[in-house]
Amino acid sequence: MPEVRAGDALDDLIAAAAPEDLRAGDVLVVAHKVVSKAEGRTRRLDEIEPGERARQLAASDAARGKDPRLVQAILDESTAILRSGHGVLVCETHHGFVCANAGVDQSNAPDPDELTLLPKDPDRSARELRAGIAAARGVIPAVVVADSFGRAWRLGQVDVALGAAGLQPLDDWRGRRDASGRKLSATVIAVADAVAGAADLARTKDSGAPVVLVRGLERFVTAGDGPGAAVLRRPADEDFFR
Amino acid sequence: MPEVRAGDALDDLIAAAAPEDLRAGDVLVVAHKVVSKAEGRTRRLDEIEPGERARQLAASDAARGKDPRLVQAILDESTAILRSGHGVLVCETHHGFVCANAGVDQSNAPDPDELTLLPKDPDRSARELRAGIAAARGVIPAVVVADSFGRAWRLGQVDVALGAAGLQPLDDWRGRRDASGRKLSATVIAVADAVAGAADLARTKDSGAPVVLVRGLERFVTAGDGPGAAVLRRPADEDFFR
Repeated sequence: MPEVRAGDALDDLIAAAAPEDLRAGDVLVVAHKVVSKAEGRTRRLDEIEPGERARQLAASDAARGKDPRLVQAILDESTAILRSGHGVLVCETHHGFVCANAGVDQSNAPDPDELTLLPKDPDRSARELRAGIAAARGVIPAVVVADSFGRAWRLGQVDVALGAAGLQPLDDWRGRRDASGRKLSATVIAVADAVAGAADLARTKDSGAPVVLVRGLERFVTAGDGPGAAVLRRPADEDFFR
Repeated sequence: MPEVRAGDALDDLIAAAAPEDLRAGDVLVVAHKVVSKAEGRTRRLDEIEPGERARQLAASDAARGKDPRLVQAILDESTAILRSGHGVLVCETHHGFVCANAGVDQSNAPDPDELTLLPKDPDRSARELRAGIAAARGVIPAVVVADSFGRAWRLGQVDVALGAAGLQPLDDWRGRRDASGRKLSATVIAVADAVAGAADLARTKDSGAPVVLVRGLERFVTAGDGPGAAVLRRPADEDFFR
């Protein structure tokens, strides 16, 4: 795929780059960065005026040398800072995601002054991409919009689904029986997150490959768009760690 | 594979069940439950005498109707209970894993009174399985021992690597450059966790398939056993949520 710029028709770019045998039942996992770029969800550092709180945070040990303008961009994307330290702000975003630096990222931008934000509504992004790819190609794959998230108690990041369309996000086994006939009481598999993580194994961070096609998950691919990855966000009232 | 019982040579069972073209570079992802069973890491409810704290917890809203003997088994596997509620105890285990109910599980046991615990040292389990499979088959695959963990801020579970041998657990991109030449400052991919999650997509909870072969990850497969999945546990002093 070519470098994606603001206003590009990302659905058409993906449709053109997808293999000839693209079929319903395939899942296209799209790195959120190209979605954000196409949607214009970027900011330039030199157009940000840091406020008082951003300056304070940037001067503290917590944000360890972060540019105050970057901290301001992170604050603008957040409803709350849950924790800060080790150079990371753990934020709750306007969507309700809990992640480092509210998903604001400087990497993979050709312009070092450019920040990439998370898409405004990643489920809508996934639905629009799905519809656009279907229109261009005549087959309707599932679409996942993915980003790499850290975890509270484990090192390293894994990709998760910010948005999804046409994919069952959760596989709920509660009340069903396992191989030995026992009724399962708590088993709900975060399918869309596992798919995002699997896709990330098929590329490298310097490959410039923003889309991965995952095949063989037909049992989770749905005719309709479905509820999207929003259902993967733990509601605040079931959250012990917010 | 046959039903696994205490004392079974799991390495030989896996070696016998693995496909004919098993090769170095393959990753065998093994559900921790068969590892625990083979290692005798199970307990019977009728042999557990719940103590005072277990009785109190079981009677509280937090553990919502849990059998006090199950709560005792969970306490025995834990160094700390971080949070409790919604019928779940979020525990830190003796290994340092943070997970629901300290990984103590009643499902997938043919005997409803049998509890499955986590393996004592899952990295050692992975190393021993790897060596045993290599001895039986003449090729040395990587081995991951996996379990399904919930996440602090996301619903549903994904599989993570409790143990690993012969697989690079983390792919550290810090200091390396992305596709646009920017130096990455925080990117470390939890490869072993992503592999565990990917493998879980290839089976269903009622398939009784305890091992999944993942192919195509040769770039992460190592000649030596490597540091294991222990390096994926976030140390307490870098943890904001313990």
